[in-house]
Amino acid sequence: MSDVSDWWRTAIIDMEPGRITFRGRPVQELIGNVSFVEMIWLMVRPDPPAAGQAALLEAALVAAVDHGPQAPSIAAARMAATCGIGLNNAMATGLNMLGDVHGGAGQQAVELYHRADTAETPLGEVLEDWIAEHGPILPGFGHRFHMPADPRAPRLLDLVDRAAAQGVCDGRFARIGRDIEAEIARRKARPVPMNIDGATAVIFAELGFAPPLARGLFCLSRSVGILAHAWEQTQQGGRNKGPTPPGYRWTYDGPPEG
Amino acid sequence: MSDVSDWWRTAIIDMEPGRITFRGRPVQELIGNVSFVEMIWLMVRPDPPAAGQAALLEAALVAAVDHGPQAPSIAAARMAATCGIGLNNAMATGLNMLGDVHGGAGQQAVELYHRADTAETPLGEVLEDWIAEHGPILPGFGHRFHMPADPRAPRLLDLVDRAAAQGVCDGRFARIGRDIEAEIARRKARPVPMNIDGATAVIFAELGFAPPLARGLFCLSRSVGILAHAWEQTQQGGRNKGPTPPGYRWTYDGPPEG
Amino acid sequence: MSDVSDWWRTAIIDMEPGRITFRGRPVQELIGNVSFVEMIWLMVRPDPPAAGQAALLEAALVAAVDHGPQAPSIAAARMAATCGIGLNNAMATGLNMLGDVHGGAGQQAVELYHRADTAETPLGEVLEDWIAEHGPILPGFGHRFHMPADPRAPRLLDLVDRAAAQGVCDGRFARIGRDIEAEIARRKARPVPMNIDGATAVIFAELGFAPPLARGLFCLSRSVGILAHAWEQTQQGGRNKGPTPPGYRWTYDGPPEG
Amino acid sequence: MSDVSDWWRTAIIDMEPGRITFRGRPVQELIGNVSFVEMIWLMVRPDPPAAGQAALLEAALVAAVDHGPQAPSIAAARMAATCGIGLNNAMATGLNMLGDVHGGAGQQAVELYHRADTAETPLGEVLEDWIAEHGPILPGFGHRFHMPADPRAPRLLDLVDRAAAQGVCDGRFARIGRDIEAEIARRKARPVPMNIDGATAVIFAELGFAPPLARGLFCLSRSVGILAHAWEQTQQGGRNKGPTPPGYRWTYDGPPEG
Repeated sequence: MSDVSDWWRTAIIDMEPGRITFRGRPVQELIGNVSFVEMIWLMVRPDPPAAGQAALLEAALVAAVDHGPQAPSIAAARMAATCGIGLNNAMATGLNMLGDVHGGAGQQAVELYHRADTAETPLGEVLEDWIAEHGPILPGFGHRFHMPADPRAPRLLDLVDRAAAQGVCDGRFARIGRDIEAEIARRKARPVPMNIDGATAVIFAELGFAPPLARGLFCLSRSVGILAHAWEQTQQGGRNKGPTPPGYRWTYDGPPEG
Repeated sequence: MSDVSDWWRTAIIDMEPGRITFRGRPVQELIGNVSFVEMIWLMVRPDPPAAGQAALLEAALVAAVDHGPQAPSIAAARMAATCGIGLNNAMATGLNMLGDVHGGAGQQAVELYHRADTAETPLGEVLEDWIAEHGPILPGFGHRFHMPADPRAPRLLDLVDRAAAQGVCDGRFARIGRDIEAEIARRKARPVPMNIDGATAVIFAELGFAPPLARGLFCLSRSVGILAHAWEQTQQGGRNKGPTPPGYRWTYDGPPEG
Repeated sequence: MSDVSDWWRTAIIDMEPGRITFRGRPVQELIGNVSFVEMIWLMVRPDPPAAGQAALLEAALVAAVDHGPQAPSIAAARMAATCGIGLNNAMATGLNMLGDVHGGAGQQAVELYHRADTAETPLGEVLEDWIAEHGPILPGFGHRFHMPADPRAPRLLDLVDRAAAQGVCDGRFARIGRDIEAEIARRKARPVPMNIDGATAVIFAELGFAPPLARGLFCLSRSVGILAHAWEQTQQGGRNKGPTPPGYRWTYDGPPEG
Repeated sequence: MSDVSDWWRTAIIDMEPGRITFRGRPVQELIGNVSFVEMIWLMVRPDPPAAGQAALLEAALVAAVDHGPQAPSIAAARMAATCGIGLNNAMATGLNMLGDVHGGAGQQAVELYHRADTAETPLGEVLEDWIAEHGPILPGFGHRFHMPADPRAPRLLDLVDRAAAQGVCDGRFARIGRDIEAEIARRKARPVPMNIDGATAVIFAELGFAPPLARGLFCLSRSVGILAHAWEQTQQGGRNKGPTPPGYRWTYDGPPEG
């Protein structure tokens, strides 16, 4: 050890020639014995998943893989695939876009649930405070496309309920999510149902993942769709494919030529 | 349908308000019923995995998640995590680096195996032709760190052998990989064992994935390590963390001041 | 025009076959007649630069091109150049890292100056409020390496003073910057001189650029260094170059093998 | 010096506390005395520009800043600006796309010119060989939108002619470019005029830049447009802006639901 080898420090991986361990477990014992989802868990946090926990995480990861070529991340990855860069670069292009607005709702919803969980004030006040700080869009609720409801959310909540019944998790955050849904409906006088981000956030919160990992795990999940679309576009071909058919161009609203 | 809706075209996902299907299968039936690895498969190719195939893919995905902070992709993701960007941006930074040299060996190995599989000349000639075209480093064999052997490769090959014994795959590419290993040892008069890229390439080839998907699937796998390290670094803190302790700086070899 | 061509809207560029205008000016009249810096100005804001303004912007752009391979963005670009990706991808890798911490100080300093400019309270209170909101590091002042002083800042301020004397700008933000410097020195009982970010922020504020453009223009400037280092590394060669010499590895601080 | 400080090595920048030099020149003497374009030159190659050379480079950099929101890089940067990531991340997203197909034509054209310059066979054979290796699209000639001609190319060539008349460059590559243009016209029996990439490649070749720098310098130039559009989109607002108006969605051509 020296100040140089000490500059990078990790509890994730150890290595010597011919030996690799992840959190103390030899790689050759993990391969073929743990699932990919259990491996993801092992990598991002020190405590191993109990029975049933990995299954919940798996459901969240399956649910969020893709939302189609209208999503800016998917469109960008498809365009990138026609620009003469590697598949990894096309994937990075799409992944880079999963920012606070496009990929952050799950993280924000976990934060909102945590706040509701520890608040000593009524839920209505918690929501009002949140809106005062962050604006009127409550993360995890409502969908501009899937109306009346996002088909992924009830299915995910159903799995949480079953897991809670079996003691895999305590169901506290599923309850909080539903309470928020009910509170919004009361205020808006119309349903604003929980969406995929709200439902996966319930799972991440039930499983004890820190809020930023809700973003990170979503990124892993959506990377699957990004890869699938980039690869499909590669097979379709095209060169420098723009966002709309070339005949439409764009609208210029600047000063006239002169 | 119009020229505009037709501009983006996909066989992966269909959507209407309240309905999402992946390759024709409703999302709510996939959630909780298919594994994350099966979902990955479903997204990147149209034919569903037969029994045992998903398990082989899972082993490959588990094996390649990380190789530690000396890998440029991991180091970059850790540095990125100290620069004030989102976790998705830090992940994209690392992923972007998995190019031909850092992330391409699996893809190249699948191409080499395919060539050996269809060649009408002896394997020695196939390798010579490859080297004449691509240079002396044969993708998938040898490791500058793991000597004498990469612990991941024999374990993965063992799983392929078992799968072949059960008829999950035919074992043709495992044989080709081992033949190449033997041929190199004969030529070099010392062992240059198959590494992780050579072994995962055997799996990808056995499962019928196109060579570029060997890169894409490796990227999915390594994204797990990239996320884990970016998140660990986030928790460790630091601001603008450079590659070496600041006291060392770098060596300037340009013209003197003047 | 249609809802499709109207979906993308810009005042920057107009095009027809054989004709391109930027903010109404034909491209062939710009080429050879405006400097690159004037073109940058024309692209990011509608009002053209008055005499002397472009020169100030030019000084800021020249000053910030590079800070060496210890900067994470430069190190990452150099590592990327050894990973088998395009020069554009290596540049994107470095640029991606210029986030709030690594590339945001200029933007934050402009915001701080604006606040000081419009505040009705004494400067000391402005700084205290800022620190209460953002923490103890005041953007644009102090440098962990360049002590006692950053050689770029006084030179840039000198140019601003001369420009103000000629009526190019009014010198208000140079005064604010110096007042902040004096106020910090008073409080800390030692000098914490203005750095490159504080000085370029004075220029950006004097020239009327919105705070986010301080980040954007810095990114343009630093892209030069990122390109230069990525290209130099390409010429030096190397494959998968990690952050430190491979002999050092890293320190593992996780659970023991078992 | 040690193996660690020697791990990163550069002739570009040297530093001590309070001192920064670029290729031996103190930063404070460069600021305000060299243009941004001269600074770019200084950073990417060791020999300083002679009089007139920087002006030619400047013309090339001005010419290539933008080609509008139909370009995938610009569209991606605009979409990115609505996803909640930093301006630097939005810029990186666009820049990442300037690969072999979208950003590589200038580099390829320089390579083609070099080959024509040193060939001992007639130009027709050089072109045939190139096409046999790379396919029918000759880099730097023809434009799918600007017909009959790209307005930037003749203006740039005109500047090269004037510079050659003044001895700034020898005009050899302008001649080669025009010869190729004439040869293509003869073969196709219709004009396929030189485009922006062919014309900037003439400049880069006349100035002695290595082919990969043609890509790198184009990336610097186009970064200006990418920034301008990302910033304009930021001001326009929008959340998760997709490629086409949401009403159009996409065409699904996969298996029916079932």
